[in-house]
Amino acid sequence: MEYIQQQFDVNFSFRVFFSRDLFDPANTCLSAFLESKAEAAFQKKLLVVLDGGVAASHPGLAEKISYYLMQVRGFRLAPEMITLTGGESVKNDLSQLFSLVDAIDQHGIDRHSYVIGIGGGSLLDLVGFAAAISHRGVKHIRIPTTVLSQNDSGVGVKNGINYKGKKNFLGSFAPPAAVFNDSTFLATLDGRDWRSGMVEAVKVALIRDAPFFEWMEKKAEALTGGDMPAMEELIYRCAALHMAHIGGGGDPFESGSARPLDFGHWSAHKLEQLTDFSLRHGEAVSIGIALDSVYSCLLGWIDEAAMLRIVNVLKAMQLPIWHPLLQKQDDEPSPVIAGLEEFREHLGGQLTVSLLRAIGRGAEIHHIDLDMLYKAADICQKLQS
Amino acid sequence: MEYIQQQFDVNFSFRVFFSRDLFDPANTCLSAFLESKAEAAFQKKLLVVLDGGVAASHPGLAEKISYYLMQVRGFRLAPEMITLTGGESVKNDLSQLFSLVDAIDQHGIDRHSYVIGIGGGSLLDLVGFAAAISHRGVKHIRIPTTVLSQNDSGVGVKNGINYKGKKNFLGSFAPPAAVFNDSTFLATLDGRDWRSGMVEAVKVALIRDAPFFEWMEKKAEALTGGDMPAMEELIYRCAALHMAHIGGGGDPFESGSARPLDFGHWSAHKLEQLTDFSLRHGEAVSIGIALDSVYSCLLGWIDEAAMLRIVNVLKAMQLPIWHPLLQKQDDEPSPVIAGLEEFREHLGGQLTVSLLRAIGRGAEIHHIDLDMLYKAADICQKLQS
Ligand SMILES: NC(=O)c1ccc[n+]([C@@H]2O[C@H](COP(=O)([O-])OP(=O)(O)OC[C@H]3O[C@@H](n4cnc5c(N)ncnc54)[C@H](O)[C@@H]3O)[C@@H](O)[C@H]2O)c1
Ligand SMILES: NC(=O)c1ccc[n+]([C@@H]2O[C@H](COP(=O)([O-])OP(=O)(O)OC[C@H]3O[C@@H](n4cnc5c(N)ncnc54)[C@H](O)[C@@H]3O)[C@@H](O)[C@H]2O)c1
Ligand SMILES: [Zn+2]
Ligand SMILES: [Zn+2]
Repeated sequence: MEYIQQQFDVNFSFRVFFSRDLFDPANTCLSAFLESKAEAAFQKKLLVVLDGGVAASHPGLAEKISYYLMQVRGFRLAPEMITLTGGESVKNDLSQLFSLVDAIDQHGIDRHSYVIGIGGGSLLDLVGFAAAISHRGVKHIRIPTTVLSQNDSGVGVKNGINYKGKKNFLGSFAPPAAVFNDSTFLATLDGRDWRSGMVEAVKVALIRDAPFFEWMEKKAEALTGGDMPAMEELIYRCAALHMAHIGGGGDPFESGSARPLDFGHWSAHKLEQLTDFSLRHGEAVSIGIALDSVYSCLLGWIDEAAMLRIVNVLKAMQLPIWHPLLQKQDDEPSPVIAGLEEFREHLGGQLTVSLLRAIGRGAEIHHIDLDMLYKAADICQKLQS
Repeated sequence: MEYIQQQFDVNFSFRVFFSRDLFDPANTCLSAFLESKAEAAFQKKLLVVLDGGVAASHPGLAEKISYYLMQVRGFRLAPEMITLTGGESVKNDLSQLFSLVDAIDQHGIDRHSYVIGIGGGSLLDLVGFAAAISHRGVKHIRIPTTVLSQNDSGVGVKNGINYKGKKNFLGSFAPPAAVFNDSTFLATLDGRDWRSGMVEAVKVALIRDAPFFEWMEKKAEALTGGDMPAMEELIYRCAALHMAHIGGGGDPFESGSARPLDFGHWSAHKLEQLTDFSLRHGEAVSIGIALDSVYSCLLGWIDEAAMLRIVNVLKAMQLPIWHPLLQKQDDEPSPVIAGLEEFREHLGGQLTVSLLRAIGRGAEIHHIDLDMLYKAADICQKLQS
């Protein structure tokens, strides 16, 4: 059988910058990045898409952004700044996607130009996808404004929108040109968003970095109380761990099945869905981490002391560790636990779940004992109160 | 300024197979490929999208395909085979895209499963794009059925659809899992599609491979007359050259501006558009190659003998080398030649056009003299008659 073998590597690289008050005219972090990309021969263009929730909390922000970007040499700012209502709903409506595609077209954003998304993870997921499919991929810059997007979603390589009620059904892998984490935005976050965003740090510390977990144990009260320098450190360390996994894990575009960073997530995804997203992602993951840590303990993989340390950090962050949907409902199975079967199918037939061998060390398992899982859920309920 | 550097390589590899009568139960080319991807633990799924023009020319084809694929071990064929009217129009309608996305959802095509597109370049561009955005990319296999798609578009890494009249405005870079070129399909091609598909071979030979060009000079009559073994050789050599460029050129996803494979294409794209696609892509490129070869000759880059050899090959393939739209229209500039300015803007401000230094050697230029270009067009008109 005759064939020609094709084979090549594509190199992807980008920086995640950490700064404060990014659009202060004296802050050259963003402008210096852009100016380093300028070309003498022609002007590149910039199109800004802003999260309405961020704009509402920061009066005058749009004007400040425009003023800042108009000074950048070698770039022309599109006259229109697009403001979209932020939050999950922005990912539910295809017309939002096409309004961005139309704006990219109208403002002549070509493959040399940049779309800049400023907002929470939901808005960034939408903007990244619109950029990825226009002209087979125009460059995008992310400026995440929530804890979750600064420490996890915004520093990764995925984007996506929901389609016909299916979470992230449409999307792609498209690394950003750069990411700018500005802690100043975080001051106006809703308390639930502030706290629940920390869960990804707990998660990644538990599977990868015991000293980071110990640091969070010490800092939990301060973090929960709004200590900004502590939050900046949490975000930096958490982002670094996520980036090291993506860049160093050998499978940045997830062609295999292993998902170590999804520790605590199998039940969380189901809980978010079953509660119609009234649980924040981080709150659901907090419950998922508690459940899978207790299960790891019942398996004998971690001892009770370690399990209690995990539960106590989550409780110190004022996060839930149990939900009534984990119980049997009138003799019917718990809809979350029943979701394990769905998850197996979603994985293509073989179940792979991350558990803990120790604080700081994740490990995978391919079988979950349902009785033991119900027992773990009961223990979470008792520890919750 | 603090930052974390992200950086990784993603490896892409796939094979382009050359075969005949692919769905003959005795032909294991496709089934062996699929079975090599089977997993003991679970069944993978297959969804077929077939070009209606191909189906119409090959009675019984859908049944033959179903019968063949149902025998493949480890795979389950979706009960529905999707047949879409082929040709450019399939790329003009967003509802076609979403009908495929819906089918991928309904038939449970996950990231382990395969969508198989069978048809011309237009259908393959649509199928590849639908696969690329579903679940952040499900695998797709291409079975191209035209000369153009077997020697050029189908063996590359791009896909796309038209949006609001803009050619390929939406799309992505998404390499296929494999490509199967089956020459049996070509026997039913319309004569214009058969002939115009050869132009990409002339193009790539002119910029890269003088012996291949000489071979085509010798074989032009036979090829034009329908000699299938000659066509198979042309397709193999042309596909190999395109693949070597993509795999070995250092920029498979086209992040830079150089497009050596677009020799003859700047005017061709404009001609296709101005004639509302009544010119085939290859016919328009034939005119574009003639124009840019004559221009190369006027510049003194190639001699007249070489220029005439090029024109004569195109004429022997019964392809046009001139179009009235290359002339001034009532003292207004030629709309094709005026398009050069648009093309410069499209490139972001700096013009880059491929010309010829010799038969087999392309070279780039950043300035085109309009008077000389009109003169080249006049010469093409004379040579045409
Ligand atoms: N792409 C990925 O890899 C990835 C990974 C994890 C999660 N996600 C996605 O991220 C989304 C969740 O993102 P999120 O948690 O950042 O929330 P979000 O984007 O949904 O925003 C929540 C709310 O906070 C508002 N907001 C944002 N920043 C603010 C600020 N600084 N001050 C005041 N209000 C502000 C928004 O307007 C919105 O109303 C989900 O859709 C999830 O699927 C993506
Ligand atoms: N992705 C890329 O890199 C790339 C590169 C070049 C061109 N293209 C695209 O390819 C498209 C053109 O593709 P094409 O030239 O293959 O034509 P096509 O797909 O438009 O098909 C032309 C006609 O031939 C019919 N047909 C296809 N195979 C047949 C067969 N074996 N027998 C009888 N009829 C058959 C189709 O039904 C259609 O009516 C354009 O949209 C162009 O943009 C893509
Ligand atoms: Zn998460
Ligand atoms: Zn072409």
